Amino acid sequence: MSSLQNTFSSLKKAQTQLALENRQAKDKALAAAAAAIDADRKIILAANEKDVEKARAGGMKESLVDRLLLNDKCIDDIIAGIETVIRQEDPIGKVRAGWTLPNGLFIEQVTVPLGTAAIIYESRPNVTADAASLAYKAGCAILLRGSSSALESNRALVKAIKAGLAAGGGIAGAVALADSGNRDEVDEILTARGFIDVVLPRGGKDLIRRVVENARVPVIETGEGNCHIYVEPSADITQAVEIIANAKLQKPGACNAVETILVHRDIVKDFMPLLAARLAGKAELRCDPVTRAAIEAALRTLPAGLVLKDATEEDWATEYIDYILAVKAVASVDEAIDHINQYGTKHSEAILTNDMQAAEEFRRRVDAACVYVNASIRFTDGGEFGFGAELGISTQKFHARGPMGMEALTTIKYLIRGTGQIRP
Amino acid sequence: MSSLQNTFSSLKKAQTQLALENRQAKDKALAAAAAAIDADRKIILAANEKDVEKARAGGMKESLVDRLLLNDKCIDDIIAGIETVIRQEDPIGKVRAGWTLPNGLFIEQVTVPLGTAAIIYESRPNVTADAASLAYKAGCAILLRGSSSALESNRALVKAIKAGLAAGGGIAGAVALADSGNRDEVDEILTARGFIDVVLPRGGKDLIRRVVENARVPVIETGEGNCHIYVEPSADITQAVEIIANAKLQKPGACNAVETILVHRDIVKDFMPLLAARLAGKAELRCDPVTRAAIEAALRTLPAGLVLKDATEEDWATEYIDYILAVKAVASVDEAIDHINQYGTKHSEAILTNDMQAAEEFRRRVDAACVYVNASIRFTDGGEFGFGAELGISTQKFHARGPMGMEALTTIKYLIRGTGQIRP
Repeated sequence: MSSLQNTFSSLKKAQTQLALENRQAKDKALAAAAAAIDADRKIILAANEKDVEKARAGGMKESLVDRLLLNDKCIDDIIAGIETVIRQEDPIGKVRAGWTLPNGLFIEQVTVPLGTAAIIYESRPNVTADAASLAYKAGCAILLRGSSSALESNRALVKAIKAGLAAGGGIAGAVALADSGNRDEVDEILTARGFIDVVLPRGGKDLIRRVVENARVPVIETGEGNCHIYVEPSADITQAVEIIANAKLQKPGACNAVETILVHRDIVKDFMPLLAARLAGKAELRCDPVTRAAIEAALRTLPAGLVLKDATEEDWATEYIDYILAVKAVASVDEAIDHINQYGTKHSEAILTNDMQAAEEFRRRVDAACVYVNASIRFTDGGEFGFGAELGISTQKFHARGPMGMEALTTIKYLIRGTGQIRP
Repeated sequence: MSSLQNTFSSLKKAQTQLALENRQAKDKALAAAAAAIDADRKIILAANEKDVEKARAGGMKESLVDRLLLNDKCIDDIIAGIETVIRQEDPIGKVRAGWTLPNGLFIEQVTVPLGTAAIIYESRPNVTADAASLAYKAGCAILLRGSSSALESNRALVKAIKAGLAAGGGIAGAVALADSGNRDEVDEILTARGFIDVVLPRGGKDLIRRVVENARVPVIETGEGNCHIYVEPSADITQAVEIIANAKLQKPGACNAVETILVHRDIVKDFMPLLAARLAGKAELRCDPVTRAAIEAALRTLPAGLVLKDATEEDWATEYIDYILAVKAVASVDEAIDHINQYGTKHSEAILTNDMQAAEEFRRRVDAACVYVNASIRFTDGGEFGFGAELGISTQKFHARGPMGMEALTTIKYLIRGTGQIRP
């Protein structure tokens, strides 16, 4: 018997119970889970400290350690996230449509829990609590497979959550942590047909690829974000510089950080020196010849610390997740859209413009989960969207696209009532 | 270069054009496609005759030949299906939700085409036209990979459809037939990441398994239907017999035909002889000891032609797709529900009852795409549901569950408008 078989079975059993819980019961259990995390705050932070020490001792990059690190503020945010989930409507049992057939059959389309989800994620222990609370409210059991680097943190968090759910009269068995640390565990999850209804890989390109190649259960791909901002000639240039700086610098490790800037060639001369000045010493620029020339023409006025390189074809296809920005001049909104649809990962894309027609064209033709006009693409986030937390950001074109809140863990069921109808 | 690479590229290109077509343009093109099928009626039927002759010569079972066979009535139905698709609302460009964030960002959730779909299906040439018209109206390109046994029929149909779309000012390139007959073609489709956004396998268990095991693109599983009808003690017995006869005999090869009847033990004595009499000479019964004893006690009054066998554990898990029916006595609605949730394929399940509480329990707890009360489960069908046609019946717990009409080929896009917002 595989090592997770018992876990799969007990999750499935717990899910059938949880599916029947009403909103009051689910919210009460979640409130108790939040209280338990609050009560276990010191234990959780101590466990996290162990993970962080081990990570640093193992030579983990500080930007990754930063993703792993919990502090009091993080615990507060985790608790606030659960409270937002509690305040949200129950996504289950909604009649989304209903109609009567000519023969009198009455059909209703009702939302139901998707079943048992598995989330496979790297670092970020806050995902543990976010995913557990969203799944619980959606009536879904969840198997959490965090990174081995966050093992102690996740154990402490899951222990608190399960104890809280139980104390609140809930179904603690609906949350489980896969914590053997064994890599085979992932393959077991990916092939658990009949037990795992969906797998959500949340992490880098390699994780996503491994999941897609090995999964025999449904997958919703997340996260890989090669995102663009297109600066159209009519854009507010000062605002554009600040939006780009925000989208690159606020959290370069996030999947919705910007990776490539497309600038209309008509404004390259005015715009590029401003952008270069703003990012000098903060992010490396990899430019095509046109944008590089515009910066170099203004070099004497630029601050020290500017790192300028030539972009290659590979840069257009790269998600740096780092303080690096590719820049390219384009001749039209059409060229910008075509570039994005060719190299983008259908995550978050923005146009900065004051031209209605260009904005409309961009919104219609860019194929991405989130298409922005005049704002930083860093808002693509379940918390920012008002979902309380998120399971990840789907780059898959299914019911769940973009930031996934609890609705991503629901599906539908048709309920049909008749009076003896048979098919002629 | 793979043999389908050009097809993938041209479908993708056609899809980006089709995605921007408005309803009027799509409906006009579809009407022209229907007219072209009507005009090519003789050519299509002649092509189908070739397929049927070849199938019979190759020793195909008559029940399968029946699925392959087209006649004038089938062509009429195909045309009527396209006309229903035309009458339906455009599923694209609907604002499904919208809200404003505290920072003033305005978010809209809008429906968009899913992209390029591939459907891999067995026999049934009507699927060719159904899938093409539904996909077209949903703004999706579609790659049709029919059975080699229906090759001539599919070629004639697709030729008419493409000619019609072009004549109606539409985008003929959005429909393509994979017709090399080469089995490698299927593997190519299943791994066409970046080109195929979803694969819909429509056929038997082996096809579905092959697709699930080899796909690297998203899959929506369809069709496998081990469906049940539970006869509760308060059911109208005469009606119950007719519903079961309909669900078994009207089209045993359909995935929503009933395979196992569960009968409450309190009514076994009255009910089983009636059911056995109704099915004698029409379907073989595989009974558990309790239901068999009830039939045998009444054997003298039963007509000739009754075939009675003992059911084994395997029978509960079998989708016969044949004139065979498994029968089992159960002690309660709970036992019926547990049996269904254990052996069912989450397709179509029914309770026959006049007891409100039993009906409610069954509707809530049975985990299936379609849950019926007092009607034949044979109504699980896109055409019957009013979708005009169907792409298949999803047994996957995603946005598309149960009969899949054009909405199954839509996804969402978030459109976000701002005035320079950056993330703090």
